[in-house]
Amino acid sequence: MTLTARLTELLGAANVLTGEAAARYCRDWTGKYQSSPLAVARPGTTAEVSATVRACAEAGVAVVPTGGLTGLTGATMNEGALMLSLERMNRIREIRADTRLAVVEAGTILQSLHEGADAENLYFPLWFGARGSAQIGGVLSTNAGGSNVLRYGSTRALCLGLEVVLADGRVLNLMSELHKDNSGYDLKDLFIGAEGTLGIITAAVMKLVPKPRAHATATLAARSLPDALILLNRLQEATGGAVEAFEYMPRRYMERLARELPNLKPPFAETHDTTILVEVGATAPRDADALADGSLPIVTLLEETLAGMMEEGMVLDATVARTEAQRREMWERRESAARITFTQMPIIDTDIAVPLDRVGDFLTAIDARLAELDPEATSLVVAHLGDGNVHYTAYPSRTDPALNEAVVTALEDVVADLKGSFSAEHGVGLSKLPSMTRRKDPVALDVMRSLKAALDPRGLLNPGKTIPPAGQ
Amino acid sequence: MTLTARLTELLGAANVLTGEAAARYCRDWTGKYQSSPLAVARPGTTAEVSATVRACAEAGVAVVPTGGLTGLTGATMNEGALMLSLERMNRIREIRADTRLAVVEAGTILQSLHEGADAENLYFPLWFGARGSAQIGGVLSTNAGGSNVLRYGSTRALCLGLEVVLADGRVLNLMSELHKDNSGYDLKDLFIGAEGTLGIITAAVMKLVPKPRAHATATLAARSLPDALILLNRLQEATGGAVEAFEYMPRRYMERLARELPNLKPPFAETHDTTILVEVGATAPRDADALADGSLPIVTLLEETLAGMMEEGMVLDATVARTEAQRREMWERRESAARITFTQMPIIDTDIAVPLDRVGDFLTAIDARLAELDPEATSLVVAHLGDGNVHYTAYPSRTDPALNEAVVTALEDVVADLKGSFSAEHGVGLSKLPSMTRRKDPVALDVMRSLKAALDPRGLLNPGKTIPPAGQ
Repeated sequence: MTLTARLTELLGAANVLTGEAAARYCRDWTGKYQSSPLAVARPGTTAEVSATVRACAEAGVAVVPTGGLTGLTGATMNEGALMLSLERMNRIREIRADTRLAVVEAGTILQSLHEGADAENLYFPLWFGARGSAQIGGVLSTNAGGSNVLRYGSTRALCLGLEVVLADGRVLNLMSELHKDNSGYDLKDLFIGAEGTLGIITAAVMKLVPKPRAHATATLAARSLPDALILLNRLQEATGGAVEAFEYMPRRYMERLARELPNLKPPFAETHDTTILVEVGATAPRDADALADGSLPIVTLLEETLAGMMEEGMVLDATVARTEAQRREMWERRESAARITFTQMPIIDTDIAVPLDRVGDFLTAIDARLAELDPEATSLVVAHLGDGNVHYTAYPSRTDPALNEAVVTALEDVVADLKGSFSAEHGVGLSKLPSMTRRKDPVALDVMRSLKAALDPRGLLNPGKTIPPAGQ
Repeated sequence: MTLTARLTELLGAANVLTGEAAARYCRDWTGKYQSSPLAVARPGTTAEVSATVRACAEAGVAVVPTGGLTGLTGATMNEGALMLSLERMNRIREIRADTRLAVVEAGTILQSLHEGADAENLYFPLWFGARGSAQIGGVLSTNAGGSNVLRYGSTRALCLGLEVVLADGRVLNLMSELHKDNSGYDLKDLFIGAEGTLGIITAAVMKLVPKPRAHATATLAARSLPDALILLNRLQEATGGAVEAFEYMPRRYMERLARELPNLKPPFAETHDTTILVEVGATAPRDADALADGSLPIVTLLEETLAGMMEEGMVLDATVARTEAQRREMWERRESAARITFTQMPIIDTDIAVPLDRVGDFLTAIDARLAELDPEATSLVVAHLGDGNVHYTAYPSRTDPALNEAVVTALEDVVADLKGSFSAEHGVGLSKLPSMTRRKDPVALDVMRSLKAALDPRGLLNPGKTIPPAGQ
């Protein structure tokens, strides 16, 4: 019996797709990666995932798990393997408001979890543009970040427990609800961020946090990046660490936004070098409950901090959101990054991190190197400044693999000099494999290969991703 | 050349101890575990650790790393292996106040790091009784918890980067300062909590937090455990999540404290069932700066919350610390647990976690089981209630291995019923190996064994600890 026939027996014909029916799984969000899988399987339970993986192991066929196809590194690129979609496992099994956690299946869409938590007056604090498509399994497998990491951490910090199907089909049950558990090695964190190369995540226990009762949101122009960091530190001090987002949009980003999305009104009459979107979340009633005059204490705190820095000349202009619509408009400027970044080709999109006081050094150095390599090239930047995480996109003036490689290498050089990482939050997938080969500590690479060999000795789980083969 | 001679050549005679000179390394804090190592080596640098481990690997001799000997599970118990003390690697290499991190060597004593951070007006938020002896390497290797986990997380949550010497002597450099790095598998978290069985931690980058400008600390009597949890939730809401400690001391603990440490004044004239120590930390000036009348806003907030609950009858009595001396006295009652717990033998000391709304169910069930098994047995409890982490100590009426085993098994039963863990923060070492065999998911155990075999194929790193051998 062929594997496809065997899977059809296991899952039903409606859940084993080929040809036209499989087409929509074969192209990811970036459009850069086209897959040609053997078939697409859509198991509906953990037991079915287990049986599917077991059948693949028996047939010696590789398995590539896939979520919402919103990744940016080609991590679900697939040539002849079984593509395993978790989309039917999309139930929020339980939300426990008293202990602030959600038990979710891997195919749950991030936005559904936001909505589920919201109904219990709680918040799942992982927030990024693709939240309407991204699935929890993919979010966990890439250790996704986003705009709230500053306060709440990346996906890893939000996960209490996992269920994982191993390469041989066995189910590893780590579905703990505990905040403390030192019974042996930390297996959970090994599977988080492993891009499906060590096991297939089928369910998880995720932390929820109190829903902020109010937000104070502002767009401001800082005199410089160091001044923006002073603002961040002052706001963290004033609010007791309640800053939820601190996003940097440089002049070129604001100009491009105005050009490509003219309906989005610019925040200021003048375009500044350093535009910042800041948001503070307040959960305590004394911060979030309106006073007799209608003012919100958390908003007043933000306004006073901004006013003080304007007097000192460190903030040049600022506007504070008065309504939810104004707040959404501020966020739309930032979240349009994904839409405007990918409209120009050729493109080298990167996702680096440096210590957060070195973002300015990074930008100065890389723009200089880019100009040397390709005087007509341009770049676009948007950054989670509070995490030192910069999305630097270069647009070379021509399609030229050697130039492309030179730009990426220059970027790696600059990042390495500043003790940064060439992959902050998007992961490795296929696109960052050359960087892994060139830049990752060889001992670390060797340890990763040992772990991969231990957990997937036949190399059947998402082969060719995350860890470059030895000897390259 | 013997291994000892070779090590003497490498490290100098003063740093390879045998006989009397080695004696103080051979007995841990509990007194339950006596070691008889081949020798004690005291390398002074990472290169010397590497050379030492390499020499052991060549000689086929096992290595047991040791820190401050304050562990409670026999994790540094040693029969004929080389004991490797990191005590000479005790430098704080750097404290970077602007980016809030410390680069420390593994032998740094926890209290030294507290003092180093304090000098920069920062705080290293890992706090427990043994802080004057515990070393960072041991703290990391056991993923230590303590009293501030509620707000800041366990050791794992406080570590940004690690340096590890592997079983063959290679140095794995993961000394990142980044808050986001998705370049491959999460190796760091695998070594944290692995009790030296996968590698020897030699240095780390640890997070620091703003030093609270003020604390509001109270001892109170709650009507019941559920009422205590209502208090915790109200305080978290009122303070925006600034509760740093929420410690539970039951009646029997308070009685024993009064008997064994009579100089420590009881908090109330009457002894209550449910005594709670709560501490809130304030970093924002508006919470922590005294008002014109001398009152501290954060203290007022705590008082108001307690007063409201007294009116409702949920809090029976309460006293708020007015001076640092009063605060220290409140903490001394809680931190005397280690002193009074180990004065009676025979003893079964445990360290379990349950979902935090199930602590009461746990105590009721286990006391009933203990009474069935040994009607004359007594127990002593102190708990990090905010984490669901209970230190339950049973004192059987007689020394009887079968009874001991029956009590431990009963405890495991109760914990398993409540979806808890038999080891919350102390780790596994030797003492929890039988629990690992009986209670850990067999697939998880098998994965742990695969990882151990991948990273330490000859089984030379702290052999016989953490993971029980297969087939037991």
